[in-house]
Amino acid sequence: MRVLSTELGAHVGARVTMAGWVHAKRELGAVSFLVLRDRTGLTQIVSGEPVELQPETVVELEGMVVAAAQAPGGVELHDPSFRVLSEPAEPVPLELRRPQLKETLPTILDLAPVALRHPRERAKFELAAASVGGFREALDRLGFTEISTPKIVGSATESGANVFRLDYFGRPAFLAQSPQFYKQVMVGVFERVYEVGPVFRAEPHDTGRHLAEYTSLDAELGFITDHFEVMAVVREAVSGMVDGIREHALGAMKLLEIELPQVPPDLPWLHFADTGVNDVDLAPADESRLCREHGEWLFVTGFPMAKRPFYTHPEPGRPEYSNSFDLLFRGMEIVTGGQRLHRYDDYVAAVDGNTAPYESYLQAFRYGMPPHGGFALGLERWTARLVGARNVRETTLFPRDLHRLAP
Amino acid sequence: MRVLSTELGAHVGARVTMAGWVHAKRELGAVSFLVLRDRTGLTQIVSGEPVELQPETVVELEGMVVAAAQAPGGVELHDPSFRVLSEPAEPVPLELRRPQLKETLPTILDLAPVALRHPRERAKFELAAASVGGFREALDRLGFTEISTPKIVGSATESGANVFRLDYFGRPAFLAQSPQFYKQVMVGVFERVYEVGPVFRAEPHDTGRHLAEYTSLDAELGFITDHFEVMAVVREAVSGMVDGIREHALGAMKLLEIELPQVPPDLPWLHFADTGVNDVDLAPADESRLCREHGEWLFVTGFPMAKRPFYTHPEPGRPEYSNSFDLLFRGMEIVTGGQRLHRYDDYVAAVDGNTAPYESYLQAFRYGMPPHGGFALGLERWTARLVGARNVRETTLFPRDLHRLAP
Repeated sequence: MRVLSTELGAHVGARVTMAGWVHAKRELGAVSFLVLRDRTGLTQIVSGEPVELQPETVVELEGMVVAAAQAPGGVELHDPSFRVLSEPAEPVPLELRRPQLKETLPTILDLAPVALRHPRERAKFELAAASVGGFREALDRLGFTEISTPKIVGSATESGANVFRLDYFGRPAFLAQSPQFYKQVMVGVFERVYEVGPVFRAEPHDTGRHLAEYTSLDAELGFITDHFEVMAVVREAVSGMVDGIREHALGAMKLLEIELPQVPPDLPWLHFADTGVNDVDLAPADESRLCREHGEWLFVTGFPMAKRPFYTHPEPGRPEYSNSFDLLFRGMEIVTGGQRLHRYDDYVAAVDGNTAPYESYLQAFRYGMPPHGGFALGLERWTARLVGARNVRETTLFPRDLHRLAP
Repeated sequence: MRVLSTELGAHVGARVTMAGWVHAKRELGAVSFLVLRDRTGLTQIVSGEPVELQPETVVELEGMVVAAAQAPGGVELHDPSFRVLSEPAEPVPLELRRPQLKETLPTILDLAPVALRHPRERAKFELAAASVGGFREALDRLGFTEISTPKIVGSATESGANVFRLDYFGRPAFLAQSPQFYKQVMVGVFERVYEVGPVFRAEPHDTGRHLAEYTSLDAELGFITDHFEVMAVVREAVSGMVDGIREHALGAMKLLEIELPQVPPDLPWLHFADTGVNDVDLAPADESRLCREHGEWLFVTGFPMAKRPFYTHPEPGRPEYSNSFDLLFRGMEIVTGGQRLHRYDDYVAAVDGNTAPYESYLQAFRYGMPPHGGFALGLERWTARLVGARNVRETTLFPRDLHRLAP
């Protein structure tokens, strides 16, 4: 029966079996100190004999659990006997034993299959996993149903720009830029739906905040009055994500020394007209400034229609503005959403009567749809904001961009 | 405060607000009977006045909750006053009020945005959602970490056949046929990982069991002895899926009158050599026959290496067979899995030294990987088996195949 690093404290005085990777090794006179890494953490192993194991050797071992105040976790393993399960074919090209990797980001990304083994690298994706779990739990509680919608689509979702083209059995097809149309259609079925899945943008700009493929946390709900009801769900979702981390990734949080955000019952909001921005959209610099002025959370509402997609619901009484919002978190937009049009005639007008490319999408609206809205949250951006990463590639397992298609 | 159909019983004698779609309507003398559909079910509305509302009109209404033994749920709403939220632009092309849709499958799929509103259609996807939730819960309990891996890849995953090609910023790229390589790499990081996501197969055959895009429930775990440890996890996963339905989709189950499978603590298994099949793989007819002979669950183990992918671990002592398995459920393969190679040299030999296309995949093995294995379960097939659907398109929201790219 294998004992994991974090379980070792319960076995002091017993001889146990462990397994994992040789994370680090040093000799001090006749004594060998070795650090074993498993999925829960690190364990110090002390041997009176020389240990001939290279870093990243996969081992199973037996040893005596001994209380040791100076060791991480307060226990260590003495008198080990090893069985090698697999040996590296060549020396590891990164120093995983360092508290933090010293290599540049491109090198770390090129070597991701090994670099991700570093406890701090790994911890970021534990935060991501716990966040997604918390997102689902929050929405499940609110009566949402999870859906899986197609990523190969017959026409571009959001716009013709930035879309990947595909050969689909000899016909042209596209990769979905979002599940937008499908989640709206599914409001007609389940009223409240969410989907966590990949979205694809042929993003020609090489920035620290854009990826060609990322994980989108999408939700959509019907029978709303306006976008403020959607924003209330966004609040529950991000609060659930923070709870998810607190419940399931406390170790990762401590290792990365990050501070979890407080999520007040009502997140503050500001209308676009009151942001002091003289344009139709926020620039990254505006996002930073607004968070400096208003705190780590800020909804900006009422974006000008000029920069929102055609399905956006205008603001009643001020049709140059819209019932839409972005949520800024620690200086960056992480959520975008709003109320959508729900009447068939409004859609026909919004696409200037050019309904053909939207035929199956518009079916839903032709046969009765309630007022509805929704939002999308980018997972990699969320994690980047949490850990203070400047580049979203730091919180993506295997990023895809203009230049990068591997690993 | 809106009251949902299933909550109505708690409000007898009160005047409440409801909302939803006009599902059906009939006049009986001076009395109008109307059925309201919301996300939880149906409610009968009785009005002493004629009601001029077409099917699929979206309404909010107020009325008095009255106990009525003959009504579905034992309650109905009297004396309603309606507010129309949205009207269909034209008559609905399907008779949603029927207990079961009468249209052919192609028509139902063409009209999916409306057809899915039918309670029986919708119920299938409630089963799917509850199954996925149960899958995750089971694996979370076993210490698995959820991951998101790229769907755009630089080289074909499983084989060069049946892969969709993509223009990636002027370079060729492919849609991932599975997360196989990435989940194996991630065993080096988290030991135990799972991913629920789309996979893509340019499947040129037009069958009732294949799709060009489907939802794959993938898991992979390290530090195993052989494939039987993977099969034990499969058993926990499917048991979790059944539990998920029992806990979260009981209504859908009852509506569809389906019987949930029993999941015994040990699922039966049979070595390929003992199946009586004179070929290197099972044909659909073999799968049906084996389930007739052995019951609704059967693991077939030890498939011939000839038909398994290059990363498959051979059977010790009988290298023409492999440490792999399929799980048959009610006459069809729903899971495929096995132990994988874990030593770098074994991979180099398995690809005949042609390592270049697998460079970043092989990185993981070059630097120490434990014995590991995993499996993939096709969600749409699982749901099809549960509801007894002959065609997997019946349990896919918006199927993609040789001919179908919309809706």
